[in-house]
Amino acid sequence: MMTMTTKMLTIRETSAFLLGTDNILILTHQNPDGDTCGSAAALCVALRSLGKCCYIFPNSTVTNRYLPFIEKYLAQDSAWQPETVVSVDVADTTLLTDESKRYSQDVALCIDHHPSNVLYAKYTLLDAEAAATGEIILDLVRDIGAEVTQDIALPLYLAIATDTGCFRFSNTTSRTFRAAADLLETGIDFVDINNRFFETKSKSRLLIEQRINENIRYFDNGRTAIAALTKQLINDTGAKEEDIENISSFLRSIEGVEIAVLLRERGDNLWKISVRTSSAANASAICSLLGGGGHARAAGCTYSGSYDEAVAAIIRSIETEKT
Amino acid sequence: MMTMTTKMLTIRETSAFLLGTDNILILTHQNPDGDTCGSAAALCVALRSLGKCCYIFPNSTVTNRYLPFIEKYLAQDSAWQPETVVSVDVADTTLLTDESKRYSQDVALCIDHHPSNVLYAKYTLLDAEAAATGEIILDLVRDIGAEVTQDIALPLYLAIATDTGCFRFSNTTSRTFRAAADLLETGIDFVDINNRFFETKSKSRLLIEQRINENIRYFDNGRTAIAALTKQLINDTGAKEEDIENISSFLRSIEGVEIAVLLRERGDNLWKISVRTSSAANASAICSLLGGGGHARAAGCTYSGSYDEAVAAIIRSIETEKT
Repeated sequence: MMTMTTKMLTIRETSAFLLGTDNILILTHQNPDGDTCGSAAALCVALRSLGKCCYIFPNSTVTNRYLPFIEKYLAQDSAWQPETVVSVDVADTTLLTDESKRYSQDVALCIDHHPSNVLYAKYTLLDAEAAATGEIILDLVRDIGAEVTQDIALPLYLAIATDTGCFRFSNTTSRTFRAAADLLETGIDFVDINNRFFETKSKSRLLIEQRINENIRYFDNGRTAIAALTKQLINDTGAKEEDIENISSFLRSIEGVEIAVLLRERGDNLWKISVRTSSAANASAICSLLGGGGHARAAGCTYSGSYDEAVAAIIRSIETEKT
Repeated sequence: MMTMTTKMLTIRETSAFLLGTDNILILTHQNPDGDTCGSAAALCVALRSLGKCCYIFPNSTVTNRYLPFIEKYLAQDSAWQPETVVSVDVADTTLLTDESKRYSQDVALCIDHHPSNVLYAKYTLLDAEAAATGEIILDLVRDIGAEVTQDIALPLYLAIATDTGCFRFSNTTSRTFRAAADLLETGIDFVDINNRFFETKSKSRLLIEQRINENIRYFDNGRTAIAALTKQLINDTGAKEEDIENISSFLRSIEGVEIAVLLRERGDNLWKISVRTSSAANASAICSLLGGGGHARAAGCTYSGSYDEAVAAIIRSIETEKT
């Protein structure tokens, strides 16, 4: 297989590239979050406002929380052939869905903020200083000459708010706040998004937090907290996928916890590990020791083995990273 | 008793007034929050930077969460006589502490954002559009010619972040976000504040939320949730005052709840009632029917009587307000 070298683009060059293309298909990552969905929707609206034909590729793994933000823009006609494939917030082609992986070799442009981006696209607009890919899209929308309407501002608010924990996480910058100020000035109903994504907890979610709280194992004098989210627990509480989202942040919120690890049972002896850290440790470095990656404060990996083996493996990774 | 009429001031007039005075004492409200403490600290630092003698009056009801923000600026010398008394974020003299009530008749300037302000001061700078009094103080600090240093930016960030639930509540505006952007540019450690005030939950807090969750009574098809925070419950969980702060927001966060009411036992048959609402109801209007007040989404009142009587009274107020 040939190794492809990406060409890094500036915002200006990205605008020029997009203005010179048409029939654009936008890809989101698997288990999509607010940033990938919001970025895709805003970019799609902006390109359409400039007269381009543009769709978002359907994502089979999207939950009901995020589907409403992209469903109006989904490509429905299987006969339609895109000319240009653009991915947003997708750090690696392994993070595409089973269905969208067919485009792995054909991504013309990747717009992303993950420092761990593997540079798989022909062109890459990477800004690791941006708290969310949505921040980059806002700059791009303006640069390309599209108007920031409510249809663009609302998904971008979703993108930025969800990737910063509603402006709580350490990735928030003055640029993030200024972006949010500009988006609010369009008159979007941001309170509705805040209520749905940050204020409200379902009764199932409350129950899950309680059950996780009961199975936490503490290490390193309470600075590391590890808990399991088993299939059994999910069944018992009647939780849906949207009740479980970002549940590892609950562990991180317990006083004194600097490294929070949630092991979610994904199959027989198969664990999806989510790591959330304070500034005391690098989550991405810890997960990369087990073949994963992500951001400095939030990262993930998978592990095959028993629960106790998985716990032992992540503890070893934490100790290795700390020394 | 003579009724005093206040004179409403603009920012410009407030600057002129403060520049023409000296020996300034700043008052905060009882059970002080981030807004009153942060506003007081920032104003004190700004006035001192202009060569004024300025202190904050000690507040006997301050918790360890907020004390560090004001303790450097507290008036210690009982012989010192202030010339000018300024209150910040204090809507009514009844909200002063037992000790600071001695100045009730002598407040020269009140700076506040509560629409329910009773206009008790000689001069009043009232901006009900501001999400926090801290937003007004930021404008004032600039107008008066003080530099926005980290010593000013950090308490103002505290003020704004705590009064908006870290930018989640509906009082957040583009002005709020721009203020936060400016404050971050001074290089303050806002992440430390976010971690302490928004990310971290003590184990006592988790336990209290669990116990409150167990005693919720739902009305109006789950749209109203009422729960008790008794002295017994606080004792059982070993909670300190800072573990209890803003606990009514926990009730509001339960899916489907539009009106959350927490009754905190303050004495024999004495209840401090906190009401938090979605846009479906006006918390201030509900509480004013029982002699209280506050903001549209967060208000309070007190009630003398049994728990069941208090619940019945607040339910009647809610029904009256809704019709």
